[in-house]
Amino acid sequence: MNNLNNNFNISEIITRKRDGLELSTDEIQYFIDGYVKDEIKDYQAAALLMAIYIRGLNGRELADLTQIMMLSGDHISLDDIEGKKIDKHSTGGVGDKVSFIVSPLVAASGVKVPMLSGRSLGHTGGTLDKLESIPGMNISLDTDAFKRVLKDVGMVICGQTANIVPADRKLYALRDTTATVNSIPLICASIMSKKLALGTDGMVLDVKTGSGAFMRKMEDSMELCKTMVATGEKAGRTTIGLITDMDQPLGNNVGNSLEIMESIEALKGNGPADLMEVTFHLGAAMLMAAGVETDFNQAMVRLEKALKSGEPLRIFREFIAAQEGNAAVCDDYSLFPQCKFQEPLKAKSTGYIEKIDAYEVGMAAIDIGAGRRKKEDAIDYGAGFVFHKKVGDKIKKGEAILTIYTNNPGCIEGAKERLKKAILISDEKVSKPKMVHFMLQKQ
Amino acid sequence: MNNLNNNFNISEIITRKRDGLELSTDEIQYFIDGYVKDEIKDYQAAALLMAIYIRGLNGRELADLTQIMMLSGDHISLDDIEGKKIDKHSTGGVGDKVSFIVSPLVAASGVKVPMLSGRSLGHTGGTLDKLESIPGMNISLDTDAFKRVLKDVGMVICGQTANIVPADRKLYALRDTTATVNSIPLICASIMSKKLALGTDGMVLDVKTGSGAFMRKMEDSMELCKTMVATGEKAGRTTIGLITDMDQPLGNNVGNSLEIMESIEALKGNGPADLMEVTFHLGAAMLMAAGVETDFNQAMVRLEKALKSGEPLRIFREFIAAQEGNAAVCDDYSLFPQCKFQEPLKAKSTGYIEKIDAYEVGMAAIDIGAGRRKKEDAIDYGAGFVFHKKVGDKIKKGEAILTIYTNNPGCIEGAKERLKKAILISDEKVSKPKMVHFMLQKQ
Repeated sequence: MNNLNNNFNISEIITRKRDGLELSTDEIQYFIDGYVKDEIKDYQAAALLMAIYIRGLNGRELADLTQIMMLSGDHISLDDIEGKKIDKHSTGGVGDKVSFIVSPLVAASGVKVPMLSGRSLGHTGGTLDKLESIPGMNISLDTDAFKRVLKDVGMVICGQTANIVPADRKLYALRDTTATVNSIPLICASIMSKKLALGTDGMVLDVKTGSGAFMRKMEDSMELCKTMVATGEKAGRTTIGLITDMDQPLGNNVGNSLEIMESIEALKGNGPADLMEVTFHLGAAMLMAAGVETDFNQAMVRLEKALKSGEPLRIFREFIAAQEGNAAVCDDYSLFPQCKFQEPLKAKSTGYIEKIDAYEVGMAAIDIGAGRRKKEDAIDYGAGFVFHKKVGDKIKKGEAILTIYTNNPGCIEGAKERLKKAILISDEKVSKPKMVHFMLQKQ
Repeated sequence: MNNLNNNFNISEIITRKRDGLELSTDEIQYFIDGYVKDEIKDYQAAALLMAIYIRGLNGRELADLTQIMMLSGDHISLDDIEGKKIDKHSTGGVGDKVSFIVSPLVAASGVKVPMLSGRSLGHTGGTLDKLESIPGMNISLDTDAFKRVLKDVGMVICGQTANIVPADRKLYALRDTTATVNSIPLICASIMSKKLALGTDGMVLDVKTGSGAFMRKMEDSMELCKTMVATGEKAGRTTIGLITDMDQPLGNNVGNSLEIMESIEALKGNGPADLMEVTFHLGAAMLMAAGVETDFNQAMVRLEKALKSGEPLRIFREFIAAQEGNAAVCDDYSLFPQCKFQEPLKAKSTGYIEKIDAYEVGMAAIDIGAGRRKKEDAIDYGAGFVFHKKVGDKIKKGEAILTIYTNNPGCIEGAKERLKKAILISDEKVSKPKMVHFMLQKQ
């Protein structure tokens, strides 16, 4: 502990949080610095994380933790790029391909969209994995290339190559093995420290709620949304939070190349209603966060007009090409990795689709090769599901609810069994779910 | 995790306790087995310990944890030794030399007293350190020697050489660095698992309360006492708990050889009132636990008679000799390690001693060399304090409250400063404290 402030002691810091007391800025700094330097041990950090999990953090402690974690690594300045820069972040779900649609839509309206994204986690797909289903696509850009693509194209999506928030990498790995992942302040600090390390003008947070979200209950999603918006605003960034539905998969396609294809179709004006509703809302919030629109409905109209102009599809092609991918996929889907096996899942009865459990769909996607069980697992980029019916749709006995795509026929029966249990059909009429539940912004 | 039951998962166990749920016997078994085998990591154990600290354990979980910890190591059977075997355990304090007086007293009444003791911890002295101030004394007996001394002499006190409760050794070291020491269920499981690994007929628990105790508040001491008695009884051992005063040091002497000398004086009939009150109560409880007396007052009378007979002093000499110590110390205190420096602490005013903070006295004893700051530190066996006045005693300005004994004159001033702050003198008459607050036994 020679390099650390000698006025502090990790045992006393753990004791204070254990007993429900507030930690000072300096105490939080001492913890993060010491942990990054390995001077504070994993077992001490684990005890403190559990105390934080149970006792919580107040707004001031959380803002400090986020800021201090952010400062543990590099900051990417975007000041030398003209225009407003707005980031969008989703807390993760099943079938969530909004980034691929909203980014060119918003870019077409003159706002730049820089995104540092991640891989699949648990039952959810990963933005980077989906992009890698495009032949040639490079998602490992260094900071200069990241900025160049953003400047030239108006959007960029890649993985973190700079040393952004090393504190989060260590803490996340520890949380993952100590039952301290699902803590609202710890989730918030983890997400927001990374978002704040990128020099945007503001950000829009898509907090998912429902069976396929990490926060299944509306109450918890609201709390996480509130906490993240407050933390972003405290750090001086315009931050708008939306709570959107993740009780069934978003859109019709689940799986890496299937989701990219659905995104291209959406950019051609053929997106399914639920997906487009979420996309337009998030895009409108991004235009508001950028300050280019002040009226939400006006912002929605602007995005609809932009979509019709074809400009977003042009930007998406340019984005693929700028990151070394084959933009011809936009016109020829046979250039994507293909699947040898297709199998429909047929309805057992006539009625209305009542529920499609998004978590189970995500797990079934892993079963057929579209996701990873372990970090080292290879992905079958073509594997996934195409839903022909969604919640509220009428269906006849024997009609296909969805089609399974895979290269591994041995896993089809297991996936069908899981999906059968995950999908409920009701005799009575079921209404389509509301897609956007709340929007939260500082007034 | 190949050797462990595959139906369990440490993350799920941590999650359950984190959320305040009850752990099953098998889950506790899985945790202890896995941790002892290093298959469960320190950071996972730390997260679980913090969850237990905050959420607690119910009686069933605690009894299971204690039993499973006990079974993680060896059991010492005493079945082949005739007579009742009763152990006494103190939760630790300052000036607590009761073991050296009560063991021969109870042994003189025909009950065998086997004790496995420890070293100094924090501000408290250690039974083994005190014994080692007797020239030649061997406190490392193997199981056979331990049983032979018990059988021949009627009492034995030594350290753990057998592999008793390895789970506790690992857990205690971890608790010490993760702010999870002061948890009533964890303290109880730590103490009782070790006590139950020794095949006694019953035990008496001396739970200290006050400034020099680990549990300073009566409420916490009561809770710990209740918990330990219930755990002992659940394991089928007659267990009696007493809550005794540790708000000022017990007796007049604090320090290793000084406490042994005071014990010998007590066995000669010259013990101070507070020390003898605690000793007789604990001894009477031991006779009751052994079933050789059913009436508490009768038991007290029996011990007083035994003391007058001189038999306990004879047993103590025999005990010293049996463990290779020089029993001549009982008649010639100059055989103990001596101190070159003696310094009185004089009263600043006339009045009545109102308070002698036992924690601060313990810390001052470490300052002058009687205890350890770090595990590796050497002890000055002769160093310590002899109190001439205790709480309730009248004192004149300039009169010595106590005498400091040390071989390190450089530390005297610091110790005096600390002691001055720890001792309060009142103008008004102060009554002598009650020494034994409660006795708890199953009816």
